[in-house]
Amino acid sequence: MVDGVKALIFDVFGTVVDWRGSVARLAAEFARKHDLPEANWDRFARDWRNLYQPSMQRVRSGELPFTKLDVLHRMNLAEIAPQYGFGDLSEEALDELNLVWHQLSPWPDSVEGLTLLKSRYIIGTHSNGNIALMVNMAKNGGLPWDVILGAEVVRQYKPVPATYDRCCDALGLSPSEVMMTAAHNNDLAAARARGLKTGFVARTDEYGPGQTKDLEASEAWDVVASDFVDLARKMGC
Amino acid sequence: MVDGVKALIFDVFGTVVDWRGSVARLAAEFARKHDLPEANWDRFARDWRNLYQPSMQRVRSGELPFTKLDVLHRMNLAEIAPQYGFGDLSEEALDELNLVWHQLSPWPDSVEGLTLLKSRYIIGTHSNGNIALMVNMAKNGGLPWDVILGAEVVRQYKPVPATYDRCCDALGLSPSEVMMTAAHNNDLAAARARGLKTGFVARTDEYGPGQTKDLEASEAWDVVASDFVDLARKMGC
Repeated sequence: MVDGVKALIFDVFGTVVDWRGSVARLAAEFARKHDLPEANWDRFARDWRNLYQPSMQRVRSGELPFTKLDVLHRMNLAEIAPQYGFGDLSEEALDELNLVWHQLSPWPDSVEGLTLLKSRYIIGTHSNGNIALMVNMAKNGGLPWDVILGAEVVRQYKPVPATYDRCCDALGLSPSEVMMTAAHNNDLAAARARGLKTGFVARTDEYGPGQTKDLEASEAWDVVASDFVDLARKMGC
Repeated sequence: MVDGVKALIFDVFGTVVDWRGSVARLAAEFARKHDLPEANWDRFARDWRNLYQPSMQRVRSGELPFTKLDVLHRMNLAEIAPQYGFGDLSEEALDELNLVWHQLSPWPDSVEGLTLLKSRYIIGTHSNGNIALMVNMAKNGGLPWDVILGAEVVRQYKPVPATYDRCCDALGLSPSEVMMTAAHNNDLAAARARGLKTGFVARTDEYGPGQTKDLEASEAWDVVASDFVDLARKMGC
């Protein structure tokens, strides 16, 4: 339990869902459907994801006006498509492939843990994913959010400090009544700096066997849990 | 059934919840708790609500920057408080009373109908209520929204045309894939003008025995239902 917490807001990519395994699996299916040659789809997922932070940085820096993640994902896909044999596909086919991010699978404990937490707390997303992406992912994966917050609502990308402030303001809560929950220490550090409570759940397979960061909590976060069910128990559910 | 619809977005005050009966009941409880004299709490609810449209009009016209409904409700409460014996209460007490809007009770068919619709469609709010108000109301009343959209997300009040466009855009859907559902003909007319599908559910007791408008559909909306369960059946659920 963490005194006074009324809402938990969650990082989603990596924390709630397995983007790497899901993108790899869905890209392989897509390639088969389009009669494209085999490739290392796990590497494809990681290569696509590697362009994620630099593309958001263009928004954070003001180089681009606020641009939804679906659009950034699509720009990034165009950049890596030729390396994976997608260079000759139509724009429509690439638009379809871009929607794999709407279909990421939850980690095995996510739905059960969130359902437990929902009985006692407001649970919401505070992800850099846009609203449609989050809604479709929730419908596909059974994620029982009370509210979709995050980048498109606050018009900026984490970890810009104002994103945390605006999430709390949207909930009508003070920062100390809101717990940021993530598998990423830097997200929690940014949230703590704005006065939010913090919950860490390690996802040591997010990047696969070579993962070197976020293998454990780097600070004494308010809660450190082994998975979402453990988090729910530690939050009194 | 209405072909091609993927999401239903809902007006909330009056359509999903009974604001008049709820505000009257909760205001009476509040007055008893504060040892205030009896009053006509039904009229209080209607008087408070009568200031709703003029206060939003100040935002629509640009006189005020976007201001959340919680804040407008609070300004409007300050205006009518003295007439109902609340004039000597502290600011904190009036802040508490202002939150009755977060606790409005669903009409008897709302939760069942929404739950049915949710199995087949994305269901979201497109209300002038702010995010915290909608989230708290949903937690209190068991409303199973997939997504909270509406004024605070689109930064403008219905029936400004852009509010409908922005809701569809947030869902990543074309207007013809989205059905606006309301007990108010003017809301549906505004939505239809932007290309959305339309669903009407009459709520003939919204304003009480003296209600003169919205007693029936004023145009041939895509669906006209007697309540939310009937709406769900007519939408193939």
